[in-house]
Amino acid sequence: MSLHPDRLFASCPQQRALARELYEAVKALPIVSPHGHTDARWFADNRAFPNATTLLLQPDHYLLRMLYSQGVSLSALGIAPLDTAAAGAPRASIADPEQAWLCFADHYHLFRGTPTQQWMDHVFSEVFDLPERFCADNAREFYAAINRALATPAFLPRALFERFNIEVLATTESPLDTLQAHQRLRDDPWRGRVITAFRPDPVLDPDYEGFADNILKMEQLSGIACDTWRGYLQALRERRQFFRSLGATSTDHGHPTPFTADLPLAQCETLYAGALAGSLCAADAELFRGQMLLEMAQMSLDDGLVMQIHPGVYRNHNPSLFAHYGRDRGADIPGATEYVRNLKPLLDKVGNNADFTLILFTLDEATYARELAPLAGHYPAVRLGPPWWFHDSPEGMLRYRQQTSETAGFYNTAGFNDDTRAFLSIPARHDMARRMDCRFLAQWVSEHRLCMDDAHALARDLAGDLARKAYRL
Amino acid sequence: MSLHPDRLFASCPQQRALARELYEAVKALPIVSPHGHTDARWFADNRAFPNATTLLLQPDHYLLRMLYSQGVSLSALGIAPLDTAAAGAPRASIADPEQAWLCFADHYHLFRGTPTQQWMDHVFSEVFDLPERFCADNAREFYAAINRALATPAFLPRALFERFNIEVLATTESPLDTLQAHQRLRDDPWRGRVITAFRPDPVLDPDYEGFADNILKMEQLSGIACDTWRGYLQALRERRQFFRSLGATSTDHGHPTPFTADLPLAQCETLYAGALAGSLCAADAELFRGQMLLEMAQMSLDDGLVMQIHPGVYRNHNPSLFAHYGRDRGADIPGATEYVRNLKPLLDKVGNNADFTLILFTLDEATYARELAPLAGHYPAVRLGPPWWFHDSPEGMLRYRQQTSETAGFYNTAGFNDDTRAFLSIPARHDMARRMDCRFLAQWVSEHRLCMDDAHALARDLAGDLARKAYRL
Amino acid sequence: MSLHPDRLFASCPQQRALARELYEAVKALPIVSPHGHTDARWFADNRAFPNATTLLLQPDHYLLRMLYSQGVSLSALGIAPLDTAAAGAPRASIADPEQAWLCFADHYHLFRGTPTQQWMDHVFSEVFDLPERFCADNAREFYAAINRALATPAFLPRALFERFNIEVLATTESPLDTLQAHQRLRDDPWRGRVITAFRPDPVLDPDYEGFADNILKMEQLSGIACDTWRGYLQALRERRQFFRSLGATSTDHGHPTPFTADLPLAQCETLYAGALAGSLCAADAELFRGQMLLEMAQMSLDDGLVMQIHPGVYRNHNPSLFAHYGRDRGADIPGATEYVRNLKPLLDKVGNNADFTLILFTLDEATYARELAPLAGHYPAVRLGPPWWFHDSPEGMLRYRQQTSETAGFYNTAGFNDDTRAFLSIPARHDMARRMDCRFLAQWVSEHRLCMDDAHALARDLAGDLARKAYRL
Repeated sequence: MSLHPDRLFASCPQQRALARELYEAVKALPIVSPHGHTDARWFADNRAFPNATTLLLQPDHYLLRMLYSQGVSLSALGIAPLDTAAAGAPRASIADPEQAWLCFADHYHLFRGTPTQQWMDHVFSEVFDLPERFCADNAREFYAAINRALATPAFLPRALFERFNIEVLATTESPLDTLQAHQRLRDDPWRGRVITAFRPDPVLDPDYEGFADNILKMEQLSGIACDTWRGYLQALRERRQFFRSLGATSTDHGHPTPFTADLPLAQCETLYAGALAGSLCAADAELFRGQMLLEMAQMSLDDGLVMQIHPGVYRNHNPSLFAHYGRDRGADIPGATEYVRNLKPLLDKVGNNADFTLILFTLDEATYARELAPLAGHYPAVRLGPPWWFHDSPEGMLRYRQQTSETAGFYNTAGFNDDTRAFLSIPARHDMARRMDCRFLAQWVSEHRLCMDDAHALARDLAGDLARKAYRL
Repeated sequence: MSLHPDRLFASCPQQRALARELYEAVKALPIVSPHGHTDARWFADNRAFPNATTLLLQPDHYLLRMLYSQGVSLSALGIAPLDTAAAGAPRASIADPEQAWLCFADHYHLFRGTPTQQWMDHVFSEVFDLPERFCADNAREFYAAINRALATPAFLPRALFERFNIEVLATTESPLDTLQAHQRLRDDPWRGRVITAFRPDPVLDPDYEGFADNILKMEQLSGIACDTWRGYLQALRERRQFFRSLGATSTDHGHPTPFTADLPLAQCETLYAGALAGSLCAADAELFRGQMLLEMAQMSLDDGLVMQIHPGVYRNHNPSLFAHYGRDRGADIPGATEYVRNLKPLLDKVGNNADFTLILFTLDEATYARELAPLAGHYPAVRLGPPWWFHDSPEGMLRYRQQTSETAGFYNTAGFNDDTRAFLSIPARHDMARRMDCRFLAQWVSEHRLCMDDAHALARDLAGDLARKAYRL
Repeated sequence: MSLHPDRLFASCPQQRALARELYEAVKALPIVSPHGHTDARWFADNRAFPNATTLLLQPDHYLLRMLYSQGVSLSALGIAPLDTAAAGAPRASIADPEQAWLCFADHYHLFRGTPTQQWMDHVFSEVFDLPERFCADNAREFYAAINRALATPAFLPRALFERFNIEVLATTESPLDTLQAHQRLRDDPWRGRVITAFRPDPVLDPDYEGFADNILKMEQLSGIACDTWRGYLQALRERRQFFRSLGATSTDHGHPTPFTADLPLAQCETLYAGALAGSLCAADAELFRGQMLLEMAQMSLDDGLVMQIHPGVYRNHNPSLFAHYGRDRGADIPGATEYVRNLKPLLDKVGNNADFTLILFTLDEATYARELAPLAGHYPAVRLGPPWWFHDSPEGMLRYRQQTSETAGFYNTAGFNDDTRAFLSIPARHDMARRMDCRFLAQWVSEHRLCMDDAHALARDLAGDLARKAYRL
């Protein structure tokens, strides 16, 4: 059997008993998923997922990166290079879905002990009722069983959404997206709550692929001329309003750094002209991005959208892989990130405003206790997002709580995000977070640093209420 | 009941039994408090503290920051803005002390699990004999009971000092302070040992408010003309001597970085002239501060004062709060700090001298294992100060011991500092440190990395002897 | 008794039982030591080690640094200053070996709880059968017993090598070394496998003492003119080939940073000319080192040598100690290290090549989860070396596994290195690593994050197979 009922709890019996008690009270609470990357079309269309490989393996960059790191080629996983895919070139060397699945099974030992394995095991066991340990020997059987299940009504996207007890699920879209799936969902009698979130990197970051074209497209979509700074801001306001009309309660920003700036109008106009012309140097592009974070914060004061920043990743670090296979193949690498000076212009302007909410994320854990907990523990506007990406893991969650709770407290944190494109893993991820939070609280109770009543209240807050509140859901 | 006799010990019974045994042997040892921010006038005057709010809530920036971060205004806590206070403007919107206390109680859940809660609970339970959990329901009762107690002789500052079993308590003063309270204490028959410490930031840092005026004031106090570099250094020597005559055994330096410099005389003279004229650029101000740390170290070689550096904080990060409410309201934010290159000029000059002691502090825990433990584990002059400020907490103390002990050993650390203005929390803070140290030692004993005899010796050293030795008390 | 059979295992009985079971299965496996600093002449000559002080105390910079940090002079440890040694000056003030040993014993309490103490206790107890705790009272007895043992055949280097069950032991030599001891070993009927490793810092780093002379010497040894960039590279290839002929499977690079560069040929030639002329500025010297790491990587593609980088140490931080006593006295201090941008030129060129292996080390633990695990978990060429130097300790090993395993997995790590000059401590160090790995795995099993079968497989992999594979042994 791959899943133990006490998994992730500390082994010390005193702690485990407390963790169990806390977990029992929150395990069945509805899932609040305020930030993630699922596809709204799944729920709008409600068509069957095609097969195990296409659903579970190929889109999951956690799986791809580990397999690739041990010499497994992407083509062995059934992923075609961009040019082959585009040109319809012969795919002889690209594995078919079942071959790809078997290759994955052959290398499943690489994931021993990783959260990826725990999520996959949860999906196999709880979603597909395949409680055996997945391995090369049963890979074909798993493949067939999963595919059989996916063809049934119980595994259609909406049925799973309901079975997973999802209260609300946010997707993430660009301002250039027409949100047609969200519009169809709005007009559909189905009552599942799937909302969008506003991620404007393509029109805020002068270094983004096709920035000037993106602005043109925004001009068309918004009907507002973007040839001036003023028009550009107005078009952004219009897009935000459109996203709000389809349920958005938040924006999200994936800048290389959390740098913010508060520049004079004339300089903003000059930088914007340079951005349109593609003539900004790296420093000016950073200035522009910094100014735009400030603009977004000010628009949030007006329209109430909660602002998220996910900074500090070197995207597409591997140029050869990027050229052949594109984004999101597991080649994004984090780096050191500075918040105290970078965020100061923004916080000087809106940090004292309790009506504004800024949720900060990091991949640089050295900033948890040093910068982020002190910032969140002082500024009324700042909340600390949950452990993100590489740190969305049992050890990562422990470090997060250990390093933030004493200075930020629990109430300056924003609950859990699954932040995933892997829809079927959503229950696994929330379950892991609830288990780890209960484990952490149980430890503090066992050490008489917290009473059990407070731990129960906190476990509920962490399992949903803090996310509802921070994201205004 | 809010305090458990086994609080902070690990839950594993094997470890807990060992921790208890170690703690029993040190819990009642006298308190050595070599660095802190209490007010010598309390002990010189020995007047009753006014009320719970003024004593326990309003001066505690740990409390203010957390409440403020969740939207509680400082005026709701009875704190007047600077201009209101100065101009005697109407205080209608400023809560009275009891209202402020009730507001605090209403938000006490924000501190769940934090060290602040543990210190407050200790003060309520052990100092005021109010063992119930503090909450909105009993807030009025607590307020009244505390105020009644404070009016009794047993709660006068000297009585508490004796009841707390404080062997020595250091305050921290500026060279511009005339130390009148310390002089009165010296001349008083009361035998409590309250000593000063020399914190010359106002006359070392060209960026300090009123630097040139401060120098003038030092000139008047010392009777030594400070219009030349040579006179300036001489006046500093005189002030140090004055502080030594009132018990000081240490200096303390709160510079933005631990940068040190060893510049030629002519450059020192030029920089000093620029500092007096207020004309130094940021880089030159940093150079000047760096040179002054070296000068302080050299004076320490002559007069024996132990040198402390507390670097790496962005003070008054929130300009609006600073403008309205001034310093120490919880808006200081730490940042990354570099020691290896910054301290080199100073260590090159005096680091090999075992007669000199430099105690280093940090808010950047990434430097514990990487920089500070290697430095303290090599240079005869260097000792590592205890976990500071945000890290003076159970988790912070564990990280400190886990990350420094293997490379620096225990004997290159300087024991515990409470570093507090909250006089009544001093027993709570030392008790927390003793518990956490015993817990840590118990773990290593339970894992057979340390024998129990050595752990007993270490527990005593950490509870007082290392502080006595490092601070030459 | 100084060694407990359960030492280093967690105290929780559930975990301890699992750790014991895992450890029992790997404790007796042969030692694979792919990187270290023992002296090949010991095994070539097979002469008796002179005495306890010369063998165990004086060459061990872990011991020297801690003793020195507490005011013990190196002369009290029997270590002569360089000029005294060179000039044959009177050594009256230099302690004799037995005095030095007694001084060490007097200060042995400084090492309480440190890995150094655990290694020494292991050497005393397991190698010399002296199971009592070492202290001032038995120091003379230990000294005599150790010296008696060292004079017997059972304690000759080869006998110890065999008794320690060493399968392979790599030393580290400069390209300027003629490897005579390795040649004698090759020609000797003794079957112990002692191989060299190629550490070319003296001829790659323009800042290395005597760089130009070193190049001249390489010219003589290789018979290839090094007055041109092309000749220089050719000579390096020849030296690598020579090292390979004596068993080398790896190179090693101790640069100040992991900076790499991919420069045009003309710039390489210019930089090389400047390096020879001693005229490079600091930035150009860094550029040259960066280019040379790339060159080494490309040569590795041709000759199959695995590449190691050990970056991020400020060597000889204490100039006075360096002037009087030279290198490796415990005065090397780590600093912050950046991998993501620094390694990009090298990874762009060869990072996708699974035939190339780059093993990365760090002294900046903040990079474990942030940079190194993501890099190792993506690039086919990258493996993560074990915790190094200050972090080769129980707490350091735990942090390493906790912070790397979830993102890099176990199979992107390279097993254990002892990296030591202290030959007699090799079994102690591998035993510590095996115990800590089993403890870590046991914890994850106890928390149902790993099944026991997988833990057994991993324990074996970590104890030897991963090192064999990563180092191509």
